[in-house]
Amino acid sequence: MSSNETKVSCDALFGFCAACFEKLGLSAEDAAVTAENLLFANLRGVDSHGVIRLKVYADRLRAGGFKADVHPEIISEGDACASLDARQGVGQVAGLAAMKLAMAKAEQAGAALVSVRNSNHFGAAAFYALKAIDRGMIGLAATNAGASMAPTGGREGRLGNNPVAIAVPAGKYPPLTLDMATGSVAWGKIFLAQQKGEKIPAAWALDKHGVPTDDPNAAADRGLIQPLGGYKGYGLSLFIDILTGVLGGGAFSTQVKSLYQSLETPSGSAQAFAAIRIDAFLPRTEFCKRVDQLIELMHSCPLAPGVERIFVPGEIEHETAQRRKSEGIPVNAKLRDELVALAQELRVPSPFSADDQAEPV
Amino acid sequence: MSSNETKVSCDALFGFCAACFEKLGLSAEDAAVTAENLLFANLRGVDSHGVIRLKVYADRLRAGGFKADVHPEIISEGDACASLDARQGVGQVAGLAAMKLAMAKAEQAGAALVSVRNSNHFGAAAFYALKAIDRGMIGLAATNAGASMAPTGGREGRLGNNPVAIAVPAGKYPPLTLDMATGSVAWGKIFLAQQKGEKIPAAWALDKHGVPTDDPNAAADRGLIQPLGGYKGYGLSLFIDILTGVLGGGAFSTQVKSLYQSLETPSGSAQAFAAIRIDAFLPRTEFCKRVDQLIELMHSCPLAPGVERIFVPGEIEHETAQRRKSEGIPVNAKLRDELVALAQELRVPSPFSADDQAEPV
Repeated sequence: MSSNETKVSCDALFGFCAACFEKLGLSAEDAAVTAENLLFANLRGVDSHGVIRLKVYADRLRAGGFKADVHPEIISEGDACASLDARQGVGQVAGLAAMKLAMAKAEQAGAALVSVRNSNHFGAAAFYALKAIDRGMIGLAATNAGASMAPTGGREGRLGNNPVAIAVPAGKYPPLTLDMATGSVAWGKIFLAQQKGEKIPAAWALDKHGVPTDDPNAAADRGLIQPLGGYKGYGLSLFIDILTGVLGGGAFSTQVKSLYQSLETPSGSAQAFAAIRIDAFLPRTEFCKRVDQLIELMHSCPLAPGVERIFVPGEIEHETAQRRKSEGIPVNAKLRDELVALAQELRVPSPFSADDQAEPV
Repeated sequence: MSSNETKVSCDALFGFCAACFEKLGLSAEDAAVTAENLLFANLRGVDSHGVIRLKVYADRLRAGGFKADVHPEIISEGDACASLDARQGVGQVAGLAAMKLAMAKAEQAGAALVSVRNSNHFGAAAFYALKAIDRGMIGLAATNAGASMAPTGGREGRLGNNPVAIAVPAGKYPPLTLDMATGSVAWGKIFLAQQKGEKIPAAWALDKHGVPTDDPNAAADRGLIQPLGGYKGYGLSLFIDILTGVLGGGAFSTQVKSLYQSLETPSGSAQAFAAIRIDAFLPRTEFCKRVDQLIELMHSCPLAPGVERIFVPGEIEHETAQRRKSEGIPVNAKLRDELVALAQELRVPSPFSADDQAEPV
C-alpha cells in the first residue's frame, strides 16, 4: 500500500455512497443498487469503476444529466426479447431491471436478449452478468459509451471503448468472468493514472493530434483510446454499438455523450443484456463439472518462462474481493479529499471518521 | 496476379467441389451446401477457408473423420434455444441446419441460440451469420477448434483459434460482417503462407518451443497461435469454447481435434448459432437507416496520415466478391496440382479444362 493510501471497509464506503445517492434524490432501493455496483468494482480491484465515479455521478444527479426519479419502461417485448427505455435515469437502475427481465424470459424460453436506450453510465458490466450465476444461467452485458476510439485508419472518435462482460457458473471454482473493453484499455484506468500521477503505456491512447502518448493528461485532453489489436477491436466495438444503441433505438457512435462532458445532458448510452439458461442445453451439474474441467485444463498448462501461475478470467478479481472484504478498500489521498468534500456538501457522514482502518494520510 | 496463379470461375470451382463431394458420398443437397461454403470464402478473398480445404475434406470423408451419410439430430429444444448433435457429419451441413433452426425460433421468440456438438470444421463462419440478413435478422456464428493457443502465461495449446462471425443488415450498403478469430491470425493464413513460401509476422505464432517465429513451417510444426491482444483474446477464445463445446455438450479445449491430424477421427468440434429478429426491437427500415448512418460516420472519419480510405467490417470482402464474380478466383500452382490430382482420383472433370480464363502456368 502506498503511503498516501487509506483503507476503508467496504461496508463503510457502501453506506456512504448509498447515503449520498439518497440525498441526491434516489429511492433507498435505487441508491443501494447504484452503491452496490460501485463497491462491487472496488472489491474486485477494478478501482477505475468504483467510488472514484461517485463525484461525477453526484455532479450529474445535481445537474440533471442523471434523472433520479424515473424508472425504465418496456417499449416492446417478445418471448425472448425486450426493449427498455431507461428515461435518462441512473444506468445501474435500468441495467439491473433489464438483466432481471432477460433472466425471467430465459427462464421460460431458454435464452433472451434485452436492450436499453436512453440510459447512462452503468458501471462495471460484470456486475450484471454475474447476477445470472445464482439462477443457473450464463449472463452477458454490454454497453456503448462516448466516442473515444477512431475506426481503423481514422483520427477522430467515432466509437466508444465499448465493453462486454460474460459470466459463467463453475462447480467447485468461482464463476468465470470476463469483463473487457474493446479498446486496449478502459478510460477509467487512464483517469486513475492521472489521479496517481503515473505514466501510461504508449499503446493505450493517442493524444489530440493522433499521436501515441504515455501522458494520461495528454490522453484525457481530447485524445483517443486505441482499439484492441487493431481492426478486430474496431469491429468488436462497432458490433457492440449495433447490439446496444442501434438495435435498442438509442444513441450510437458520436451521439453518445461521455460521463464527463456536459453534466446536465443525459449521455444517452445504450446497453444490452442476455441470459442463457444452462439446463435448457445440459443438466446444470454436468455443465458445472465441464467448466471445472476447462478451468483445470488452463491451470495445468505448462508455464512459459518466468510465469508462476496461470489465471482464468475473473480469478484475480475474485481473490482480490476475498482479500478486500477483510482488509478494506484502498483510497488514495486525492480520492479521499474528494469524498470528504462531497460528504460536507451533501451533509452525509464521512466514511473516514470511524472506519479508517489503516495509517492516516 | 502472381505468375504462378490461374484464375478460374466461381461456377467452375463450385461445380467441381460439389461433384467431388457427391462422389465422396454426400447427397446432392449436402454437397452443394459444402461447396457453396468453400466458394463463399474464395469469392470474398478469404482463400484460407476456400477450395484450399477441399483436399483435406476429401481425405477425411474417405478416412471416416467426416461422416457422409448422417444428418443432425435435435437433442433438446425450447422456445429460444436448441441443442443439436451433428453425428460427426460435415460441419457445413450441421451448421446450416442449426442456423436455420435459430432463425425459425427467432421468428417467433425474437432471438434464439442453437448449439451443435459432435461436428467438424464448418468453414467460414460469416457464411452462416449472413444467412440471417434476408430474414431481417442479425446472425451470429462461432466454433471451437483444435487447441492451438495457450492461455496467457502458458506454452501448450489449450484453446482453439476460436472464431466468431456477426452479420448485420444495412439499408443502401452491403451488410456489415465481422468474421474474426480470437488469435492474432487464422491458421489458414499460416497454411497459405506455407503454400506460397512466404514469411509470417512474428506476432502471429510461436514455434514448438514457445518462441515467436516468422517461419510458417516452424509454426505449423507443433507451434501455437498467439491470442489477440494478450489476455483479452485468451478470454474471448475461452468463452467461445464455453458457448460452443461446454454448453453444447460436445468436445472442448484439448478434446477437439485439428482438421489435419488423424483423418479417420472426427474432430468433435462444436458450434453455436444465434439469430436476433430486428423488428422485435425496431421497425426494420428504421434499423437499416440507423446502420447506414453508422457506416457513414465511419466512412467520414478524418483520416490518419497515409490512409486513403476507412473500411467497415465486411466491406473489403464484399468488394472482392463483386470483382471475383466477374474475374474468377485465383488458384496458385500448388493448389492447382492438388485439385487436378483429386479430380483424377475421384474421376471428376477438372475445373481447369474448359474454364481456365487466364494465362496457363
